This record gives sequence, C-alpha cells and structure tokens, in this order.
Amino acid sequence: MQSKIMSRRDIDFLLYEWLDVEALNRRPRFQDHSRETFNAAIDTAEQIATDLFAPHNKKSDQEEPHAVPGERCLEVKVIPEVKVALDAFCAAGLMAAGQDFELGGMQLPCTVEKALSCYFTAANVGTTSYLFLTIGNANTLLKTGTPEQVRRYVAPMFEGRYFGTMCLSEPQAGSSLSDISTRAEPDPVAGLEGERQYRLSGNKMWISAGEHDLAGNIVHLVLAKIPGPDGKTIPGVKGISLFIVPKFLVNEDGTLGERNDVVLAGLNHKMGNRGTTNCLLNFGEGKFKPQGKAGAVGYLVGQPHQGLSNMFHMMNEARIGVGLGAVVLGYTGYLHALDYARNRPQGRHPANKDPARPQLSIIEHTDVRRMLLAQKAYVEGGLGLVLYSASLVDEQRTAETPEARERATRLLEFLTPITKSWPSQWCLEANSLAIQVHGGYGYTREYNVEQFYRDNRLNAIHEGTHGIHGLDLLGRKVSMQEGALFKAFAAEVRETVEAASLADAGAAVSPQLREYGDALAAALRRVQHVTQALYGAGDMNKTLANASAYLEAVGHVVVAWIWLEQAIVAARALRACGETGAAGEQADFYHGKLQACRYFFRWELPKVEQQLALLESIDTTTLDMQDAWF
Amino acid sequence: MQSKIMSRRDIDFLLYEWLDVEALNRRPRFQDHSRETFNAAIDTAEQIATDLFAPHNKKSDQEEPHAVPGERCLEVKVIPEVKVALDAFCAAGLMAAGQDFELGGMQLPCTVEKALSCYFTAANVGTTSYLFLTIGNANTLLKTGTPEQVRRYVAPMFEGRYFGTMCLSEPQAGSSLSDISTRAEPDPVAGLEGERQYRLSGNKMWISAGEHDLAGNIVHLVLAKIPGPDGKTIPGVKGISLFIVPKFLVNEDGTLGERNDVVLAGLNHKMGNRGTTNCLLNFGEGKFKPQGKAGAVGYLVGQPHQGLSNMFHMMNEARIGVGLGAVVLGYTGYLHALDYARNRPQGRHPANKDPARPQLSIIEHTDVRRMLLAQKAYVEGGLGLVLYSASLVDEQRTAETPEARERATRLLEFLTPITKSWPSQWCLEANSLAIQVHGGYGYTREYNVEQFYRDNRLNAIHEGTHGIHGLDLLGRKVSMQEGALFKAFAAEVRETVEAASLADAGAAVSPQLREYGDALAAALRRVQHVTQALYGAGDMNKTLANASAYLEAVGHVVVAWIWLEQAIVAARALRACGETGAAGEQADFYHGKLQACRYFFRWELPKVEQQLALLESIDTTTLDMQDAWF
Repeated sequence: MQSKIMSRRDIDFLLYEWLDVEALNRRPRFQDHSRETFNAAIDTAEQIATDLFAPHNKKSDQEEPHAVPGERCLEVKVIPEVKVALDAFCAAGLMAAGQDFELGGMQLPCTVEKALSCYFTAANVGTTSYLFLTIGNANTLLKTGTPEQVRRYVAPMFEGRYFGTMCLSEPQAGSSLSDISTRAEPDPVAGLEGERQYRLSGNKMWISAGEHDLAGNIVHLVLAKIPGPDGKTIPGVKGISLFIVPKFLVNEDGTLGERNDVVLAGLNHKMGNRGTTNCLLNFGEGKFKPQGKAGAVGYLVGQPHQGLSNMFHMMNEARIGVGLGAVVLGYTGYLHALDYARNRPQGRHPANKDPARPQLSIIEHTDVRRMLLAQKAYVEGGLGLVLYSASLVDEQRTAETPEARERATRLLEFLTPITKSWPSQWCLEANSLAIQVHGGYGYTREYNVEQFYRDNRLNAIHEGTHGIHGLDLLGRKVSMQEGALFKAFAAEVRETVEAASLADAGAAVSPQLREYGDALAAALRRVQHVTQALYGAGDMNKTLANASAYLEAVGHVVVAWIWLEQAIVAARALRACGETGAAGEQADFYHGKLQACRYFFRWELPKVEQQLALLESIDTTTLDMQDAWF
Repeated sequence: MQSKIMSRRDIDFLLYEWLDVEALNRRPRFQDHSRETFNAAIDTAEQIATDLFAPHNKKSDQEEPHAVPGERCLEVKVIPEVKVALDAFCAAGLMAAGQDFELGGMQLPCTVEKALSCYFTAANVGTTSYLFLTIGNANTLLKTGTPEQVRRYVAPMFEGRYFGTMCLSEPQAGSSLSDISTRAEPDPVAGLEGERQYRLSGNKMWISAGEHDLAGNIVHLVLAKIPGPDGKTIPGVKGISLFIVPKFLVNEDGTLGERNDVVLAGLNHKMGNRGTTNCLLNFGEGKFKPQGKAGAVGYLVGQPHQGLSNMFHMMNEARIGVGLGAVVLGYTGYLHALDYARNRPQGRHPANKDPARPQLSIIEHTDVRRMLLAQKAYVEGGLGLVLYSASLVDEQRTAETPEARERATRLLEFLTPITKSWPSQWCLEANSLAIQVHGGYGYTREYNVEQFYRDNRLNAIHEGTHGIHGLDLLGRKVSMQEGALFKAFAAEVRETVEAASLADAGAAVSPQLREYGDALAAALRRVQHVTQALYGAGDMNKTLANASAYLEAVGHVVVAWIWLEQAIVAARALRACGETGAAGEQADFYHGKLQACRYFFRWELPKVEQQLALLESIDTTTLDMQDAWF
C-alpha cells in the first residue's frame, strides 16, 4: 500500500529532478555524499517514522501529557511510546543529521535534512516537536555559545541525552518580546566560566517541551533582562540577554548535579498538537535552592543585551520548520483523503443516476476531484516552497561565490515570512478539504484527518503570527537594502518565465506553460507596482494597514512561481517519457504535476487581483474602524 | 458586562428596524402578539441560555456522553446539567414556540422563533441539538402524520416528555439516500391504525440524539424500504417510506409500553459538537422482541414510497437551522474575540514603539481590527441572511396575497442552499479569526473560541454537504420554473439597489451607498450572464463541474445584498440620530453597520469576480483530472 504519511515519489521529484541536490556533492562539505547516502537517510527516516512515530499519533492526542504532583514540584507523565520513538530517532544519529562529522553529525545538506524531517512531522507532530526544538536549541548554542557551553550542553543534545527548549514568551509578553520581565542578576562564582553565572527569576509561557520525563536533562534557552546598578532594566529589546538554564546543573565532568529552580507551574491544554507539553515555567520561585541560594542558575550566552539577535540567528530555519510542519500535515491529510476517495462508494454521476447500478467511488465525482486537486496544489506547492527555502540555506552556507551566497541570503530573507505563513493558511485549508472529502467520517476521531486539522491550526500563531509576518514582509523585507531582496526574487521569477516559454516550444503536452508564464510575469509586475503605491502613501499607518492582504497576495504569486518551476520540469520529463516509450505510472505522475499547476494558475493565482486592487487603492476601511463602532 | 453569547442590540436592529416583524401583528395568526410579547420571549431565551446552557458548554465538550453496558444493551450517560437545561427550556414552553395556541404553542412568527433560538445554539450547541431535532421531528409529523400519531407522539414532544430524531443515513448511504437498505415488512395488527404497523430491520448511522437518558421516550423518524411481494425493494428514492419507531412502544392511553428493538450499536466521537450523542443504531437486531416478535415496531407515516418527500417537507427549515447554528457559533466567537481584544495589552503602534510606554490594547492594532471587522461582516451578514430566510417562512405561511406567498416561496427555495452553506464557510472563518485574535491563548481549551471552531466545522458536512448544495443551486434551483426563482431574487436586489441610490441622496454619512448599489447591480448582471454561459455549455457535466464555486460566488452576492439592506436602514437611522441630537452609543452602532458594509463591499464582494470568470470560461481543470494522475 502507498504510504499515507508522505509521497516519496514527490520528494524524489523535488530533490533530484527539480532542485538537483546531487549537484551539492561537488562541494567540499558534501563530497562524501551521493544520491545513495541521501536516499539511505530518507529511507531510515521513513522507516522509523512509519514504525514508531505514526502508530501512537492518535494515542498521544487522546492521552495527552498530564501534570502530576512530584516530591517538591509538578512533574509530567507522557505515554511510553513517545520515548521509544525519540530514542530510535536519536540512535539513528538523526539529531545531528545536518551537523559536522566532527560533532558526530552526518553533514547532510539542509535540503535533505528537511526532506527527511517531513516524515517525522507528518507521522506525529507532537512527538517530533521534542526533537526539532532540541536541534534548534543546539544550533543556536553552536553559533553563539562558548566552547565550554557546547561541550557541556550541545554534545549531550546531539546524543539525545538532553533535550532543549526556547523560552521567549511570558504571560504578558507574547508577540511583544520587548516587554518580557524575567530578570537575571549576576552571580559570579569561581571555576570555569564562573563569571557567566546569573540568577534568574520570572515566568515563561508557551514553552513547548518545557517539562517531561523523556531525557536526562532539559536545556532551557531563556531570554531575560540584566538590571543595571540602579536595579532597573533597559526597556525594549535592547535590554534582553540570552541564558542557558538547565533543569539539572551539569558538573564539569558532565555528570548531573543539583536540581535547578526551574519548575512547571502548569500545562496549557491545546486544541491540537497535544503530544507536546506546553508549559508555564517558573524560574527562581523558591522550590529549589541550587548552590544554597535563591534564583534559578543561568549562564550567559554571548554578550549581554544581544539576546534577541542571538536567539534570532536560527529564526529563519525555525520558520522554515513551521512552514514545513504546516505543509506535511496538509500533505498527510491529502494522502488520507485520496485513499478514502478511491475506496468509498457513494452516489452516481449526474448524467446516469440509475439507482440499480452500483455506487461509484467518490473520486469519480467532479467536486471531490476538485477538493483533491486543490489539496494537491496546496501541499505539493507548499512542499516545493519549503524545500526551495531549505536549498537557499545550503546555498547561503556553501555556494562557491560570495555573489551566490548573497543572492541566496536575499531570497531567503524575502521568502521566509511566506514560507512560514503561506502553508499555515493554505495547507490548513487542505486539511479542511480532507475532512470534507471524508464527509461525516472525517469529522470523527475514529478517522485521522480531524486531528491533522486541529494540529495544523497552531501554525498561523506561533513563531510570529500571520499578521506579524505581513508587517515583516511589507514593512521590512521589501524595503531592506533599497529593495534588493525583492529584486532578487523578481530576477528569479523572470528567469522562470523565460524558461517556461522555452519549455513550451514544441511541447505538445504542455501548451499552457507560456500562458502561465505570462500570467506570472503580469502578477509580478502588479505586485511591484502596488508595492510602490503602498510606499507612496506617505503614512506608514496607511502603508502597513493591509499588510496581511499583501502577505497573502505575494504568497500566492510565490507559490505560482514554484508551480511553474515544477511544471517546467514535469513537461520536460513527460517529453522524455514519450521519447523513451515510458508510460503508465511514470507519465501519470508528470501529468498530475501539470494538472495541479493548471489548477493553481486557473483557480488560485487570479485570487490575488482582488487583494492587489484593494492594496493599490490604499484602502483605509480597517484603519478607519473605531473601537466604539464594534 | 455585555453578553458574549449574542448581541441583543443587533437582533433588535434586524427584527424591528430592518425586517419590521411588528408588522406581522396585523395578520390574524399573530394578532395577539406585540413587540412586547416578542421581547418577552427573547428575554426568556436569553435568560435561560445564559443561566443554564452556557455554563456547561465546556464541560459537556470535555465530558462528552459515553456508552455504558446496560442490562440488555448499551446505554448512554450524559452529564446532569444537560437535563436541567433542557427541562427549563421545555418548562418555559419554548418547544412549541412557533406552534398554534391550541397545541399549547405560543404562535410566534418563525422570524422571532429563530431569533430566540440563536441564544441557545450560541450558548451551547451540543445541548440545544436535542431540542431542535425534536422540534423538527414534531413539525414533520404535524405535517404528514395521522391525528392519532400527532396525539400519541407529537403532543408529548411539545411537552418535552419525549425527544425526537431523524434517521436517514446508513453506513453505506450518507449523501446517497437512494441506497439505504433498512427494510420495513408489513405487520398489521388489530386496533387503532393497526394496519400502519411494520417491522423494521437495518442500521442507521450519524443519528444525533439517537440514544440518551434525557427524556422518557425517543421518537425516531426512520426512512426504510417496504419490499414488494417478490421480497425485493424498489431501487432509488422512489422506494423509500417513512416510519415512526419509538424507543418504547406507546399504549393507547399514552402510557409507555414495551421496549422496542432499536438499540445503540456505538457512538461516533466527533471533533466538536460533542455534547450531542451521535449514534449508530441497530433496528430489529434481536436484543428485544416487542409483542413477542422479531423486528423493531414501526408505524408508517403518510403514504408508502413517499418517505423522502415527507421527510423533506421540513428540510428548508432544517437548513435554515444549520445556517443559524453556523452563524451564531461565529457570532459568539466574535463577541469573545472583541472582548479579549479590548482587554489584552500587547505591543505598540508602528509609529511609536517606545518600549517605556505601556502596551496598547490589541484592538488598537489595525490587523486586529481587520480580523474583528471581518468577523463582524461575516456574522452580522450571516445573521441577516438567516433571519431574512426565516421571515420568508412567515411570508410563505401568512402573507395576505397568493402572489406574496408565491414570491416568498421562490425566494426561500433559491436562498436555502446559500443560507445553509454560506455561514458554514464564512462564520467558520470568523471562528478561525477569533482564535487568531486570541493568539496562543485562543488555541488552548482554557479559552472558549477553539471549541466554537471545532463545533462549527460540522456545518459544511451535515444536512447536505457543501458540494451537494452547489449542485442544488446550480443544477436545480436556478433552472426551476424557467428561472422564476432566480428572477424573484434579482427583482429584490434591483429594489435594494434603487433604494440605495435614494438613501444616498443628501446623506452626508453614507456617500458610498450608491457606489455599493452599483457594484451589487453589476455583480448580479455578471451572475446572470455566467449562469446563461454555464447552461450554454451543452453538457451537464461541464455545466455542473464547478458548482461549488458558483454556490460561493452567488453566496457572496447574496450577503452583499443583505449588507446593503442593513446599511440603508443604518444610514437612515444615523440621519435621524443627527436630527434628534442622539449620539454616542446609538450613532456608534449605525456607524459600525456602515463600516462593516463598507468592509464587505471593499474586501469581500470583489472576490467573486475570479470565481465568475472561472465559471464563465467553462473551466474543465477538475473535470479533466484523472484518478491515476493523483
């Protein structure tokens, strides 16, 4: 039976036929790799995800982690299947899949690492979160920590002995991180890096994986403010520093020491994503007195007052990760709906309703095909966007020339708000359509698709809300470096449009590619024109009032471009199928790509005109709305 | 504190300032009523819903009904608060709110009945379902049952002693009712109407309120097929008959008799709407032998083979009920989000980010206002549509002239698929936006909005899926009676457009009404043109391929019309405010209506052009898609 977790055929298409990740093997960092080693890593991921992650996905939704009173503080119980799965992931060395060989890593390209991570998140997002939060934490410390911090905390995380968290938000400071009030008072001690020791006090909210019994230690990365000599902290983001706060102090020899004063105050109970604990944590509340003193022991990472930029070093990757999570939840939902639609008999064609004849599989109904094709267009378009963004990370790190690295950086900066937000919106819509294809069954917990829908709804909220990414794109990214980021994107699109007109020449199978290219080029020009109009409004409140609509319109243009890229490859491959006489399944796959591209250009891209016209008119409907009028 | 269940101010506006329900009191049926009696009924509803329905809404979601082994079959346990609430509803006489005085009813207009029912559904959809299913069942029997059936089953339902269900679907026959296989064999007995007795056997799926301990008896209305002399049933809907199957047989004196052989086979566990049991029921399985024989005892309602049309008599009202449910879940979510946005401090204006200043209430952020205004436009537009549809039911029943009754019938038939489907789509979107306004908090079960979102997702599935209503609208309604239904709608729109140009004249406060009217008239002409194009396709498969897009486009045009209607009233009232010197809250309310109308015409109505252009092109993208290409 075909996997309902991910489509390996599609991943292969994107990696090898479109993004050509094999070419990376010519670069020194990846020279020990080959298509075979990439495939072996993905095979391993598929196997472990299928065998150990997917089977308890529903169970960990239904029997979510719960807090129980421990000896001196609340503890958390998680169903045993989670640890078995996590241990298998770590034992396979996947925690360090992208790291240097010398760190025990596999030195895989980011693109391949993201491709294999699709399987885990699609199979079980709740269990997988523990892993990817740890990897994000470790990457941050690798970039900004001291060698001693790397030795003491990062190495055990890559071995899977410790897990990590990111502690940013507080109850009164979610989107507005400048308002955090957790304090860190200097507490220098003797010994290695003793001058980095601080005492932290405060509360952190929404801490995923903040407490559990799945690893020997938990390494919290915590944003806090260091007070000045007057006891006051610097207001705003400039006052924020970054600290390591381990659940258990770590001795110099790597053994675990005292329990630190970071304790669970309570769990948040979410609509979805239930397998991951989500915590309110108290720091320095007094439950424990490590080293005989009040306050949670923390260690400064990097320079004081550089906390936010240190933490945000890894934000692009974290945001690609959110986009990936949204895509693959949509993707697995689509595969479930497709399987259901092929096997559920119901109804007859409008043109032949004879009730004496057997019922049809519902995939025969045009409206069901519409829902499946829409899902396909969203999730395969989204996966293309996410893997393309990952390939830019590889380019940024390993491209041969500074120009190529600069180009990748610009594209990545421009695309990140879209890579995070577009799938959070449209692959959630795919999940809704997957429920709809299942009818009443899809609305029950006896089936899987309702959970995907609940799980996915988180993604428009965390790692920056939808609205905040709109402001990031329109308020920062398009104007940065005098528009260089946008120009880098526009240059890519123009290349694709050019390629589409060539791919089209003489290709009987894809007569629409030129038409799509023209539509894309027109949409791009519209976006550029509208962007100028917005910046000509002469009032940033007006410029930014409808930033969410801008984000959504540009997002659709970006994904149309991703689809045209895929269609060009598919059209070429289909021609080759004809030449080599290959047919059947092989040709079907490429026909499917072309049809999904057609769907996107006929049904989706035209939606942006309404948004762009609204933006161009500098509409102030929302700006003019008064509180009292609601 | 303002109610977070519904806005009474808005209900008053719609009932009295727009729909003028007071005028109904001039008709004989409603002559004993007045604005005061209408208000008293709504006051009662608000009070009971607030005091007894809302408080256990979360509890019945979290402690959903569960099946327990009984003496001879499964039984269901429901939390005790549900029965207390239902009993209070029945004790207030609300079960028969719309019925004749002689049946113990209040003889309220449908419009008022629907207005008061908003409070119950918004407060607790799970508990309320038991009531409205019973009312629907009773109405069906009133229309099609014998006087004896009315005496024995309907009267106890109006008293709240029995509850009712509708048993249509089977595991293999959901949307395709023609494929049901439940059988009814004649079993004539002596006594009153003994010739109507049958024995039923089969399974019914998705039966809401199919089993519970909330009333003395459950009256199932069941679709089944009567075999001919050869033992075979007639294929298709023509073979379907309607039966009463009571859980307990009812003696001639009204006392309860033997347990009937209809038993719970299992509960479906839903994503939302958890408070209502949803059952797989077995009929005639053999757990009980009523009157010493096999088979569930059932009584034929109406004529044999007329079952579906008898059941569908009440379908328009049931579908208005679904639309209403979708609207009010969106509505209460909006009120929750509004309250949260006014009280949650977070962030600062883009133009003044000074972190030393206190944070703003998030309603100050334009993007939050956008989300609130969108919700307002969806839920107040949807409520207008639902109450307008209910007013057509009143017109259909009590208008003075046959022409007026005919007009109402045509409009109601045309609008019903939209009244059911549009809120199921857009008021669900409102629920999603309500979560988004709450940020991370909205995603937790500690808050209420995630439940509304889960509860509301059902509405696009039951009482005919979204896709089926698309086919109903485009494949049946627009072509019925040579287009008379559509023409009736178009005539209404043209009147409104005309009124908008008059309302506009000299009104400084609403200079856009004429502009909106022009946009609406243009959209209507587009829809008419596109409809002709679709019927000119010469192939019903092509005509109907994109029926869902048609449903959505026409739905937006309809709601734009509803908004223009509301705006005309608001503009007039605002002028009166100016003349009388009334200001403040009164004027604010009307400003809000005008701003929401502006939002709908600027942000929403333009969306239809993309759908209409697609439809006009007779796009075959989904029709051409092949199973093998997925």
